[in-house]
Amino acid sequence: MSFQHEIYSPGVKVLDHGFIRLVDTMGNDDAIVDAARVSFGSTAAMHSKAQNRGLIRYMMRHRHTTPFEMCEIKIHVKLPILVARQWIRHRTANVNEYSGRYREILNEFYVPEPEQICYQSDSNRQGRGDAFENDMAVELADKIRAANHESLSEYHYLLDQGMALETARGVTSVSQYTEWYWKCDLHNVLGFLSQRMDGHAQYEIRVYANHLAEIVKAWVPVAWEAFEDYRLGAHTFSRQEMEILRALVESAPGYTGTVDARSQLTEREWKAFLQALGRRG
Amino acid sequence: MSFQHEIYSPGVKVLDHGFIRLVDTMGNDDAIVDAARVSFGSTAAMHSKAQNRGLIRYMMRHRHTTPFEMCEIKIHVKLPILVARQWIRHRTANVNEYSGRYREILNEFYVPEPEQICYQSDSNRQGRGDAFENDMAVELADKIRAANHESLSEYHYLLDQGMALETARGVTSVSQYTEWYWKCDLHNVLGFLSQRMDGHAQYEIRVYANHLAEIVKAWVPVAWEAFEDYRLGAHTFSRQEMEILRALVESAPGYTGTVDARSQLTEREWKAFLQALGRRG
Amino acid sequence: MSFQHEIYSPGVKVLDHGFIRLVDTMGNDDAIVDAARVSFGSTAAMHSKAQNRGLIRYMMRHRHTTPFEMCEIKIHVKLPILVARQWIRHRTANVNEYSGRYREILNEFYVPEPEQICYQSDSNRQGRGDAFENDMAVELADKIRAANHESLSEYHYLLDQGMALETARGVTSVSQYTEWYWKCDLHNVLGFLSQRMDGHAQYEIRVYANHLAEIVKAWVPVAWEAFEDYRLGAHTFSRQEMEILRALVESAPGYTGTVDARSQLTEREWKAFLQALGRRG
Amino acid sequence: MSFQHEIYSPGVKVLDHGFIRLVDTMGNDDAIVDAARVSFGSTAAMHSKAQNRGLIRYMMRHRHTTPFEMCEIKIHVKLPILVARQWIRHRTANVNEYSGRYREILNEFYVPEPEQICYQSDSNRQGRGDAFENDMAVELADKIRAANHESLSEYHYLLDQGMALETARGVTSVSQYTEWYWKCDLHNVLGFLSQRMDGHAQYEIRVYANHLAEIVKAWVPVAWEAFEDYRLGAHTFSRQEMEILRALVESAPGYTGTVDARSQLTEREWKAFLQALGRRG
Ligand SMILES: Cc1cc2nc3c(=O)[nH]c(=O)nc-3n(C[C@H](O)[C@H](O)[C@H](O)COP(=O)(O)OP(=O)(O)OC[C@H]3O[C@@H](n4cnc5c(N)ncnc54)[C@H](O)[C@@H]3O)c2cc1C
Ligand SMILES: Cc1cc2nc3c(=O)[nH]c(=O)nc-3n(C[C@H](O)[C@H](O)[C@H](O)COP(=O)(O)OP(=O)(O)OC[C@H]3O[C@@H](n4cnc5c(N)ncnc54)[C@H](O)[C@@H]3O)c2cc1C
Ligand SMILES: Cc1cc2nc3c(=O)[nH]c(=O)nc-3n(C[C@H](O)[C@H](O)[C@H](O)COP(=O)(O)OP(=O)(O)OC[C@H]3O[C@@H](n4cnc5c(N)ncnc54)[C@H](O)[C@@H]3O)c2cc1C
Ligand SMILES: Cc1cc2nc3c(=O)[nH]c(=O)nc-3n(C[C@H](O)[C@H](O)[C@H](O)COP(=O)(O)OP(=O)(O)OC[C@H]3O[C@@H](n4cnc5c(N)ncnc54)[C@H](O)[C@@H]3O)c2cc1C
Repeated sequence: MSFQHEIYSPGVKVLDHGFIRLVDTMGNDDAIVDAARVSFGSTAAMHSKAQNRGLIRYMMRHRHTTPFEMCEIKIHVKLPILVARQWIRHRTANVNEYSGRYREILNEFYVPEPEQICYQSDSNRQGRGDAFENDMAVELADKIRAANHESLSEYHYLLDQGMALETARGVTSVSQYTEWYWKCDLHNVLGFLSQRMDGHAQYEIRVYANHLAEIVKAWVPVAWEAFEDYRLGAHTFSRQEMEILRALVESAPGYTGTVDARSQLTEREWKAFLQALGRRG
Repeated sequence: MSFQHEIYSPGVKVLDHGFIRLVDTMGNDDAIVDAARVSFGSTAAMHSKAQNRGLIRYMMRHRHTTPFEMCEIKIHVKLPILVARQWIRHRTANVNEYSGRYREILNEFYVPEPEQICYQSDSNRQGRGDAFENDMAVELADKIRAANHESLSEYHYLLDQGMALETARGVTSVSQYTEWYWKCDLHNVLGFLSQRMDGHAQYEIRVYANHLAEIVKAWVPVAWEAFEDYRLGAHTFSRQEMEILRALVESAPGYTGTVDARSQLTEREWKAFLQALGRRG
Repeated sequence: MSFQHEIYSPGVKVLDHGFIRLVDTMGNDDAIVDAARVSFGSTAAMHSKAQNRGLIRYMMRHRHTTPFEMCEIKIHVKLPILVARQWIRHRTANVNEYSGRYREILNEFYVPEPEQICYQSDSNRQGRGDAFENDMAVELADKIRAANHESLSEYHYLLDQGMALETARGVTSVSQYTEWYWKCDLHNVLGFLSQRMDGHAQYEIRVYANHLAEIVKAWVPVAWEAFEDYRLGAHTFSRQEMEILRALVESAPGYTGTVDARSQLTEREWKAFLQALGRRG
Repeated sequence: MSFQHEIYSPGVKVLDHGFIRLVDTMGNDDAIVDAARVSFGSTAAMHSKAQNRGLIRYMMRHRHTTPFEMCEIKIHVKLPILVARQWIRHRTANVNEYSGRYREILNEFYVPEPEQICYQSDSNRQGRGDAFENDMAVELADKIRAANHESLSEYHYLLDQGMALETARGVTSVSQYTEWYWKCDLHNVLGFLSQRMDGHAQYEIRVYANHLAEIVKAWVPVAWEAFEDYRLGAHTFSRQEMEILRALVESAPGYTGTVDARSQLTEREWKAFLQALGRRG
């Protein structure tokens, strides 16, 4: 086995009390290729490593996504409810979550590190701006901690009166930790990661996404590299932008690419690149 | 138009501050039949009302579910986060939710009616038992209200310091109201209702389910009636229970059904019923 | 490892030229329990075998389906297009199929065994009735074989003229074999099996379903047994039928169950059974 | 109502015997905006047309796809099985199809126009190359027609012997027409169209996709325009290609865009464009 479950199975710590623990995987880079090559009636084993890598990259580039669904990953995650609320929006996954109706909620809540206590951003209506000065940040973090403590005590007070678990939890905050098993195919894991590693995603879920990305990278290194090249690091230009780009290329006379740059592309990719810019290869 | 959007479009009140508001529907009872009859190359209009009703009932009974996917409903809902967290687990729907990252959260939270303040059930590990005495219930409801008020003030305090919206909301409780647009096909709406109208579902989501049920009933009355007869009011006996039932029927000699009872079944259903019990029709 | 991949990995023959070959599985009976117990913060290993079995049966009985999604199976199937057309309708799966645009179609088609050459059923508008007499059946099977041969020759003739693969295949029949990788979670595999092992399903897909059932049974024996007891062998009575049943039970005075019959139910199931029939336990 | 159902409801002819007939729609451009603005607690009616258009374009550009799921379309399609087999692979739709088990199959099959009778492409392993000379093309089309006729006669012969419909159809070709109702949300309709309008898609399904595109364009013109600009007409450059592009832009000194080109972008888009190319705006 080339993929070291052992590294990830004990779980990695995330935020102050959370974790991601690898439970199981199905398939690997070769499994993607095996499924894809059923179109041609062949398998990964019948081709060279380079050919298999080429096929994975080709499919990532052209958004042939179904062969990536042939790998599956299952993780056990501990995460604040506020992160869980964002994560659960990804519907193409299988989930079983801890229930605050059957059991007392976990006695742990998330408090941001002082560096993460920031001003509301002006430019990005959806996120954080500059960090507070450290003293202030520490003070505000303490405020958050105290407020969460307070609501957790209220919860326990209500339980002590005998109140039903499902009702009492109504006073607890969205910073409370919960746990779940989460299982998803690789194509949709990559969809999740491309949205949640992105700078627009809230910091807290981004931290989870980044840790999950490490696991995925170790699990399917070739697919991951292709994902970095053709999705994460790629850029899409609109129809209008393409027109400008083509004009721009015209005004860069005689450009044929430096050896350095071109060498990163296959001959076929180079042609496609020039073609996209309105040039003959 | 037989279905009175006007009744439901203004929205019905749910819980203390919530609502369900009908936004749009696609299709109706006939649309189910039209889609189903494409198998035979005919349409609802080519058959009698009774035949169309019969087909809908037949399909509900035999779990031919895809024609029910041909109707679609869209509602606008205001609901506490704790209800939203359960509701969102139904993945076969389309959702857009209010964002506490872009805007201040709504200044409203859910407090249970005193009748709903109950002891934890012993027998049903997942739910409520007996209600508290009224004085105590009122007192506990006040406690819940106060705790929610408190965390909402903390939230506003943090905002006043300039803290990012997405961070400050970490102190607010799962009783806070949120809003969303929710769109779903009829088959999966019925799946949602069968799970969430059920006594095992938490009271708060059950109230929403019951209101949604009213809308669905007005929208597709024939499908709804079939759903009541073959799903909500039906009972499934296991392989082992069926054996006992068959023995039991043996010991009820000469039973052929009273006119009353039989008259509720078609001839075909009566035969199927007796057959299920190991008897010739 | 208790589940012998070795038996199924070489593949079992299905119909005249088809097969099902087990490629991979994720999880087993314990994985269902582990995911379900996350609700309670515990695992399969923390409970007895009997308790875990009890939980699986409880969840199957009450249609708590999401923990069954935590197991995943991948198979490689060779099947006639007419079967593939029915199979592909199950959307909750991942599929990669052989392509007749890239490669010549497989040179094999399905011809029914003479026993399967039947008259159109009168009673069952959707299926087969009595078999033809053997001589006639053999003759008709030969007809089918000849017709398929003929269209396959036409295909090769068109290819010999240089015609594009994707166009030439237009003359070939829906009996032609194709191949695919098919991956699906256990809950939806069971949904597939309950529909396609059923007598209403066409014989040809039923044969595939039955073979797949064997694999699933060996893979997750406890879940399978529960599936047989609470789904395959179970029977659902409508609201109206339940009324009749209750009346019927009244007319079977003093029935309390024989030891034999009752012993198959747990105390809890016995109570639920009597309750469903309107009796006190 | 601005969208003229009347134009599309009678159906448009596709290929030789097929059609697409608009059955129903839910929502329009404003419905996308209404759902999206629930994030901010406002609606389409509270903003100008230009603002609503801007929001749709922003969301298309940044792949905020869920608001596009808030529109739904239902069509009735008659199509050859070979097209249906490709179309059905799109799982995020609701489908009910004509059944060859209940009824005789439709007495119609697809024969390509002579212009569509082409050589297998060398460069594009997946498709057609040059067209045959007209005489030859006509001859080959006749061959295809004859072969389909032949298998249809065989089918009728088998039926005349009394053979079950479901078995007899085994001799008929994948060119036979079938019919279905197909219902899908706008986001996934666009996903379908981006794959099936593409030059890599087989001609026959492309023709259907192009007709469906016309309907969608008339239905949600603003979303459609955004789709054309940011998806159909857009181009994605890989991480490596972006490096080359940036170098290339360096070698096009002083380029700041022509008024013509720039005027197609908003100020914000222009900045994002320059930034993507490693330039300050
Ligand atoms: C009383 C009650 C108690 C509950 N307790 C818990 C609990 O303790 N912990 C917990 O985690 N949940 C709990 N749930 C939630 C439950 O597990 C389901 O997640 C929820 O009810 C949605 O049901 P669903 O999967 O049928 O609906 P949907 O998600 O709408 O799915 C409907 C069907 O579509 C298919 N489907 C949809 N999406 C997928 C997908 N991504 N992969 C495969 N198939 C798919 C499946 O066939 C599924 O059955 C509880 C629910 C109820 C009613
Ligand atoms: C930065 C950021 C900001 C966000 N802000 C908001 C916000 O303000 N309000 C808000 O409500 N959400 C918000 N979201 C959540 C977002 O709208 C998506 O719900 C979430 O990102 C999941 O994405 P998805 O639909 O691609 O994933 P999945 O649900 O995993 O779906 C993947 C694909 O599967 C298909 N699919 C799956 N299920 C269905 C189904 N039931 N019907 C049709 N197709 C289906 C679709 O093709 C879909 O694209 C935000 C997300 C991000 C990353
Ligand atoms: C030019 C071309 C050539 C092709 N060649 C082949 C071939 O040789 N062999 C072959 O098998 N297919 C082939 N296909 C079909 C292709 O692999 C897809 O099956 C088809 O295009 C549907 O695409 P989709 O998955 O994006 O659509 P949908 O099924 O509508 O899915 C949309 C999105 O929803 C989500 N989703 C929906 N259902 C599920 C699910 N069950 N599990 C997980 N996520 C889900 C995913 O995020 C998915 O991306 C080809 C397609 C094209 C356009
Ligand atoms: C005996 C028999 C006869 C049949 N005859 C016909 C016929 O004449 N015509 C015909 O067209 N079909 C026919 N079918 C096919 C049938 O209508 C279903 O398409 C097929 O059986 C798949 O079932 P499913 O939808 O439960 O499975 P899946 O597609 O695997 O879906 C499982 C569940 O997931 C959810 N789900 C998955 N995808 C979606 C989605 N895109 N939108 C909403 N919910 C989704 C739903 O809750 C669904 O119940 C027949 C099937 C059988 C067994």
